[in-house]
Amino acid sequence: MPERIGRYTLKINNNVHIHSSAGIAGKKESEGPLGEFFDVTFNDNKLGQSSWEKAEIKLQTTVVEQLLKKSFASAQDIDVVFAGDLLNQCISSTFGLRAFNIPFLGQYGACSTMAQTMLLSSVFVDSGAAQKAIAVTSSHFCSAERQFRFPIEYGGQRTPTAQWTVTGAGAALIDRGGVGPLIKHLTIGKIMDLNIKDANNMGAAMAPAAADTISSFLQDTDTKPSDYDLILTGDLGKVGSALLIEIMQNKGYDISSVHNDCGLMIFDTEKQDVHSGGSGCGCSGSVFCSYIMQKLQKYELNNILFAATGALMSPTSSQQGESIPGIAHLLHIGSQ
Amino acid sequence: MPERIGRYTLKINNNVHIHSSAGIAGKKESEGPLGEFFDVTFNDNKLGQSSWEKAEIKLQTTVVEQLLKKSFASAQDIDVVFAGDLLNQCISSTFGLRAFNIPFLGQYGACSTMAQTMLLSSVFVDSGAAQKAIAVTSSHFCSAERQFRFPIEYGGQRTPTAQWTVTGAGAALIDRGGVGPLIKHLTIGKIMDLNIKDANNMGAAMAPAAADTISSFLQDTDTKPSDYDLILTGDLGKVGSALLIEIMQNKGYDISSVHNDCGLMIFDTEKQDVHSGGSGCGCSGSVFCSYIMQKLQKYELNNILFAATGALMSPTSSQQGESIPGIAHLLHIGSQ
Repeated sequence: MPERIGRYTLKINNNVHIHSSAGIAGKKESEGPLGEFFDVTFNDNKLGQSSWEKAEIKLQTTVVEQLLKKSFASAQDIDVVFAGDLLNQCISSTFGLRAFNIPFLGQYGACSTMAQTMLLSSVFVDSGAAQKAIAVTSSHFCSAERQFRFPIEYGGQRTPTAQWTVTGAGAALIDRGGVGPLIKHLTIGKIMDLNIKDANNMGAAMAPAAADTISSFLQDTDTKPSDYDLILTGDLGKVGSALLIEIMQNKGYDISSVHNDCGLMIFDTEKQDVHSGGSGCGCSGSVFCSYIMQKLQKYELNNILFAATGALMSPTSSQQGESIPGIAHLLHIGSQ
Repeated sequence: MPERIGRYTLKINNNVHIHSSAGIAGKKESEGPLGEFFDVTFNDNKLGQSSWEKAEIKLQTTVVEQLLKKSFASAQDIDVVFAGDLLNQCISSTFGLRAFNIPFLGQYGACSTMAQTMLLSSVFVDSGAAQKAIAVTSSHFCSAERQFRFPIEYGGQRTPTAQWTVTGAGAALIDRGGVGPLIKHLTIGKIMDLNIKDANNMGAAMAPAAADTISSFLQDTDTKPSDYDLILTGDLGKVGSALLIEIMQNKGYDISSVHNDCGLMIFDTEKQDVHSGGSGCGCSGSVFCSYIMQKLQKYELNNILFAATGALMSPTSSQQGESIPGIAHLLHIGSQ
């Protein structure tokens, strides 16, 4: 069962593995540097549905179907699914997963959801509360744009610090005692708010949360950045990544040579007109569950930290003059 | 650590207690049958804030402050807080709890959130992932009305099946080996969708989920309704409660003599013009964490099932012609 190490970190003891995973994505993502690694890609970003929300709902259904297929598992084998997304009342998850008939615990961690759902799955599997658990999340550029900013038909101009919400989804099956990358430690994040108010600069709002969680983990485990092959954040983009490296430097940690960010990996930020990089739950979801998992399975990565970040505001809170709180949850994962 | 019993139920083994709880409420709730049991009540439903959302945010801050005071605990003693609410992107929880600096895992279970957060707290404490965990939720009549239905200034007429969102919040501190009501079993709910589309009849949409979870628990534990002092649902109201009793009858269980519903208890449905009864995360939150907890602590209730239900739709999904999926999570709680 999980064991507390230091103030904020849990050690996972019972051979908790990421048995398998699936990462799926839309057209623009399929044209980016990681296009070949996704399990499924869609040329039609509506996925044949009548609305952007229904398209995102279908992303969640599809990614779990794909995961079950790759795992040679049926929905009946799964004890619990942890899922969440960015849409109001998390409808991508609830509507996308209702047909599977799996016990369901809805999560809200904004863009940190892939890490949050894997973290909870790991605690459940390590403690015996579940034999097999699924973690899943999604985002869709068009459903996110019209909910958080403007309808895409409006053609609003994007600021240089703005990020591009990934159309994609990720799902992972966590179990005990099998094969696959091993969950070693977890760190649950705290809400950090440094009074950033620019809703077009999420990276800056989330970087302090990433720095807080990563440094808590390093302190709790008495390790240093160079002990890891990769410290991977979710969707800080260019602005947030530079800020994270700077804040970590101020805390006495140089992560510059081992840090990368899913939002910088999924798009060619020079050629694909995505400004500061990719974002959304589906950004870290699709990148971790495809490219990163494949690297771990091939032992090209052997010891990584995955810290996905979320911006915990809503359009209403921003309109009412509130700042943007951030959060980051971390998993320490080994290739075996 | 938690042990699986039957298909859907977890047995909690390590003396996991509800150490203490706090339930707070607004003016209308303070005038109802349970008014005297709340820890704090507010005559001003804006709580001195400039918006309904900020008022609900203050509800969450206040209920956790009150809980910590009653528990003689400080925020630093708490390993994790599970919190959620009905507002888009769960801003009552994130903004309401950011100042406490407690590791935070945001939940979305709609009106089932009090049960969901207590369930997760119990698994964490039972497994050693946390020594002390807090479960918290809230709702506010005015923030919910304008988000889900109409701004209150519009004066829209309410249907007879409509329910009244409770202005209130509940918080519970779960720990191990102390005193207080004992968590004995948990059942995680599945998403149930019987194609109900009337957003003014949530009780009917949620009753099948309550019936599914309660009957799963009874089967898994091989017990019958009369083994319990009380089978308490969250906010089915008049319509949903009658439907639950009927569905359970069809499944071979007579719960009519032991069932009650927080939504029927918090208001005088004859005199307070609330139509089918109270609803919202804060309904089961405030009732369980005040009146019910006090009954358990005084051994006036000794063996109960608490199954809070949630309707997992959004205004967008309803406008796009979708049905209303429901969910219910259950805790079996003893007075010791």
